[in-house]
Amino acid sequence: MAPHMTTLKGDKFDRPLFESVLKRRLFFTEAFEIYRLSANFKGDNRGLFDYGPPGCALQANLVDTWRKHFVLEENMLELDCTVITPEAVLKTSGHVDKFADWMCKDPVKGEYLRADHLVEGVLESRLSRGVNGPAKDSPKLEESTIAEYKNILAQIDNYDGNDLGDLIKRLDIRNPDGNGEVNPPIPFNLMFKSTIGPSAAAPVYLRPETAQGQFLNFKKLLDYNQNSMPFASASIGKSYRNEISPRSGLLRVREFLMAEIEHYVDPENKDHPRFDEVREVELPLLNKETQLSGKTTLQTMTVEQAIKSKTVDNETLGYFLGRVLLFLLKIGVDPSKIRFRQHLANEMAHYACDCWDAELLTSYGWIECVGCADRSAYDLTVHSKYTGTPLVVKQALAEPVKVEEWQATLDKKLVGPRFKQNAKAIQTAVDALDQTSLTSLASELQEKGIVTISTPALSDGRTSVELSSDLLTISWVTRTRNTREYTPNVIEPSFGVGRILYSLLEQVYWHRPNDTARAVLSLPLSVAPTKVLIVPLSAQPQFAPLVRKLSARLRSLGISNNVDSSNASIGKRYARNDELGTPLGITIDFDTVEDGSITLRERDTTVQVRGSEDDVVQAVRNLVDGTESWEQVSQRLPVFTGQGNDN
Amino acid sequence: MAPHMTTLKGDKFDRPLFESVLKRRLFFTEAFEIYRLSANFKGDNRGLFDYGPPGCALQANLVDTWRKHFVLEENMLELDCTVITPEAVLKTSGHVDKFADWMCKDPVKGEYLRADHLVEGVLESRLSRGVNGPAKDSPKLEESTIAEYKNILAQIDNYDGNDLGDLIKRLDIRNPDGNGEVNPPIPFNLMFKSTIGPSAAAPVYLRPETAQGQFLNFKKLLDYNQNSMPFASASIGKSYRNEISPRSGLLRVREFLMAEIEHYVDPENKDHPRFDEVREVELPLLNKETQLSGKTTLQTMTVEQAIKSKTVDNETLGYFLGRVLLFLLKIGVDPSKIRFRQHLANEMAHYACDCWDAELLTSYGWIECVGCADRSAYDLTVHSKYTGTPLVVKQALAEPVKVEEWQATLDKKLVGPRFKQNAKAIQTAVDALDQTSLTSLASELQEKGIVTISTPALSDGRTSVELSSDLLTISWVTRTRNTREYTPNVIEPSFGVGRILYSLLEQVYWHRPNDTARAVLSLPLSVAPTKVLIVPLSAQPQFAPLVRKLSARLRSLGISNNVDSSNASIGKRYARNDELGTPLGITIDFDTVEDGSITLRERDTTVQVRGSEDDVVQAVRNLVDGTESWEQVSQRLPVFTGQGNDN
Repeated sequence: MAPHMTTLKGDKFDRPLFESVLKRRLFFTEAFEIYRLSANFKGDNRGLFDYGPPGCALQANLVDTWRKHFVLEENMLELDCTVITPEAVLKTSGHVDKFADWMCKDPVKGEYLRADHLVEGVLESRLSRGVNGPAKDSPKLEESTIAEYKNILAQIDNYDGNDLGDLIKRLDIRNPDGNGEVNPPIPFNLMFKSTIGPSAAAPVYLRPETAQGQFLNFKKLLDYNQNSMPFASASIGKSYRNEISPRSGLLRVREFLMAEIEHYVDPENKDHPRFDEVREVELPLLNKETQLSGKTTLQTMTVEQAIKSKTVDNETLGYFLGRVLLFLLKIGVDPSKIRFRQHLANEMAHYACDCWDAELLTSYGWIECVGCADRSAYDLTVHSKYTGTPLVVKQALAEPVKVEEWQATLDKKLVGPRFKQNAKAIQTAVDALDQTSLTSLASELQEKGIVTISTPALSDGRTSVELSSDLLTISWVTRTRNTREYTPNVIEPSFGVGRILYSLLEQVYWHRPNDTARAVLSLPLSVAPTKVLIVPLSAQPQFAPLVRKLSARLRSLGISNNVDSSNASIGKRYARNDELGTPLGITIDFDTVEDGSITLRERDTTVQVRGSEDDVVQAVRNLVDGTESWEQVSQRLPVFTGQGNDN
Repeated sequence: MAPHMTTLKGDKFDRPLFESVLKRRLFFTEAFEIYRLSANFKGDNRGLFDYGPPGCALQANLVDTWRKHFVLEENMLELDCTVITPEAVLKTSGHVDKFADWMCKDPVKGEYLRADHLVEGVLESRLSRGVNGPAKDSPKLEESTIAEYKNILAQIDNYDGNDLGDLIKRLDIRNPDGNGEVNPPIPFNLMFKSTIGPSAAAPVYLRPETAQGQFLNFKKLLDYNQNSMPFASASIGKSYRNEISPRSGLLRVREFLMAEIEHYVDPENKDHPRFDEVREVELPLLNKETQLSGKTTLQTMTVEQAIKSKTVDNETLGYFLGRVLLFLLKIGVDPSKIRFRQHLANEMAHYACDCWDAELLTSYGWIECVGCADRSAYDLTVHSKYTGTPLVVKQALAEPVKVEEWQATLDKKLVGPRFKQNAKAIQTAVDALDQTSLTSLASELQEKGIVTISTPALSDGRTSVELSSDLLTISWVTRTRNTREYTPNVIEPSFGVGRILYSLLEQVYWHRPNDTARAVLSLPLSVAPTKVLIVPLSAQPQFAPLVRKLSARLRSLGISNNVDSSNASIGKRYARNDELGTPLGITIDFDTVEDGSITLRERDTTVQVRGSEDDVVQAVRNLVDGTESWEQVSQRLPVFTGQGNDN
């Protein structure tokens, strides 16, 4: 494809114009629109979008590229887990208690506002208007206030509910719609809740991420992987977040497609076996120190430098930042519009210990599209603790080691009858005690003759049990160890497919010089919804069999194509397909009937070449495979300037 | 691939053995199993399954084949619509009121039983035991009772709640678990319900089918298709049914993947433009008359005969029955285990006017895997009526026609101020009046000076309005018509991907003669989870670079492959991959190091051939493309009988 971005330069991005193209070509549409437009619809369809044919094909191609780039390339173990999730799982993972946003109610309007967005919106408005209040004649902003507001905005994600409440009070922030005061922020859990089965006794949630299903299958995955470490699982599927107030089109929605990788790694060795392949990749980084100083300056460094300088914590995290960047470039993202931003401490999800977001630049600003989090051993540990199932790796040691250590032993003959169905959970809890705990328990047991042990949840709901010295012995023993046991850490690259799709569309959108009505989406061939448009010069019947044959030929080669035999002019039909991002066009004309030759048009340059059907089909195959560029094709085949051109 | 079914013949299918293979190889697993196994889990995870790596890959390949066979082949307009659906939509479609199963509560056990399954289970048990009651010494079954029970079972799907209640009473059918009497059947709606947004005021459901989203976008799809008819939309996505009592593994689940086509057709012309391509396809049919006579005899006839004999109603429905059959054969379903069964009148979904199920034979009996329903104009009509949006096709007439007819006119100057936001809905209702209605309304308006008109739902919830003769005029006019307007009928082939996947796995499962421990899944290359297994003869380091290179080479050709470098014997590694359904195996041995030759093994026959890497890679490509068969390859390349064989 020819370079095109120059056409955009200097042009201001016109979002309404851009959106009208996407709407006209049915990339996506508001879900249930005909209901929302009807007189008595009382429902809420905000944050719900349907993908039309080109959006759906683009999404499928992005997912296919993702699967090849990550899953197939590294033999990741792909899973398809259920969306419906029992409450106990999400209670354990922390989502029931912590997966919430802060919201303020406007008691007069009865409206709910997301607290951070409220602060952000009002301060941005004050800054842009230069006055410190909603009215035009509010006092002018002081220099120091401007600096303060900018500082708040730079770390808006770092505030919790109390902080936001204080800001709202101190800066007199009100609902812009009506200027009413709002109530203090309260948390709103973002999960959709339902019940399962006729008794409706068991609450369930729609998953907020695909990760939990992967963690719960860890033991089986490790077994499937023949106990070999490190390895990764992956999932592509819908997730759900009951956003307080959806906005920004596809960027903040309530139902969305995610693609997530959970890479399991030894916490004592976070090297990656294929690190060499990304060592030299250059990352544009925005670390947390820079952000806390109120700045947004990028530092560009290789993955290797990022790790050596401790900017990025470890090889595996660095490896995935590099791989994510390569993926984004592969699908056609503008390299000058990517950055990796490190999360601030309070901004991180409750499970994460470090996180870098790949953000793409759009007309809405920098948008988080991929999160790369180090979830440490958090998830496997909590699920293991609750269920009593060990989610650990047993590594054979090269040489056995002799160790002296405390050993706890339960008298099984007594424990079984005494604790019945809980006996197994208690055994698990005792087996899981580490040396630090055993040291103190040993002396306590000697002193008092009884100790309390934390357990997985028991049948009566308790999570601890008292064990007396007739049931439990703790003794100092010498043992030979052949294996080492550890809970893996998890590095998680998590992709929001819809956000990537929208940001990409903004970045590849432009229009022909001096003609805003002729838009073009310069999607690369690999992800373009349709690869080839076939247009007969006119609706004359002699073209029809040629068109059908060519279309079937391309289809049999796995090359998606559309035929447009409508009465519109060739130029109009091409223009429609430029808006659909179709990279190649083939015209069948009177010469085709005579000598079998056809023309091939390239979308961005509108240049056409002419050749035999075999020549052109071969060129299309090469372009789709990536074995030939358009420059090469247009030098090899003669340029065509006759009938059937754009104008 | 070599024929293999002979190995199965005569062998009784052993379901526990089969399931242990699927479990061992992680095709799928009970979701949240480690929670269900933990002591205090109160939730319900029945009917929820996760697909592991081979199941997930098989599912992806089935979906990919489906997309190519249907969507790409016919340029169907694929959509991806949201699962979350506002209540109004599903109220209109009829699902809120009618999408229910009948269930009986056992008041003693507190258990809920699906009424038809209860009747079925008890009668089948009585028939198989030959006695008319739960106890061993119950009276022996009379010949006439046996005939009656068989007749009931043959039309079990034809009974509604009252019928089932009568049967339960008359035949004294009780809960097999405890022999307690059950309460009369009550309906249980099968949709999962939730709320959306912080106000939680708006109820939403998880969609029970992907169809509704497609219907609501009809107007946009027709526009996208440049107003050309007929055309089809398609969707692949998850749907949800809150089953009363999930059972039979993957066959009756609460969350499942569907692939649905909605083909929109002129009700006056249900021909299909590509009918010729399926005319000669032979369909195994079980029509409703045969079923009502208590029989299950199949009639085999071509699609053309089925339509000529009026067994199948129209060309488009027949076309899709043929296409569905071809799809099922393509993915490896046993042709002797497919039938198309017509729905009985009471069994049909509330929206359908005719329906044929493609059923696959499994150890659970014949299982509905694809439904082909003629939904007539039901859905487009009800959504159009509720929303006031015309969901119709305007067809240009070849020649304009002069018609004399009633015409209704509203006085816009009066209607606007009087009905405000409802004015548009009233205009829509008046425009939609047909000639029959207008004839009677005209005389009523003349007599009484006022008439009542049904409308789309108005802002106050009413669905009718009174119009007096100052607002409404109905007059007899002569007009020239250039267009014809109609609501399309919808033919819907609807695929349950999980059911197809499970049934296919049962049908391709067998084991090596006299060795039940060596199972094989004879999945065709096109859908097999992994195409090629690469095994080095041993863990010697000189094999590693050869293995890596070959694996990367196949991957670059888009051929999925797995490497097994474990210490297990070659035979064991092959056996593991036979259970995974991997069709081809490549061994790298000492001769490879010497002369670059490698062996290629075929799963079903275990025959191996040997050739240069280029020869073998070319053979693999041809086998995957379908341009060469294993018979051809094994005649072309020399058979290998040396080291690295199965035994």
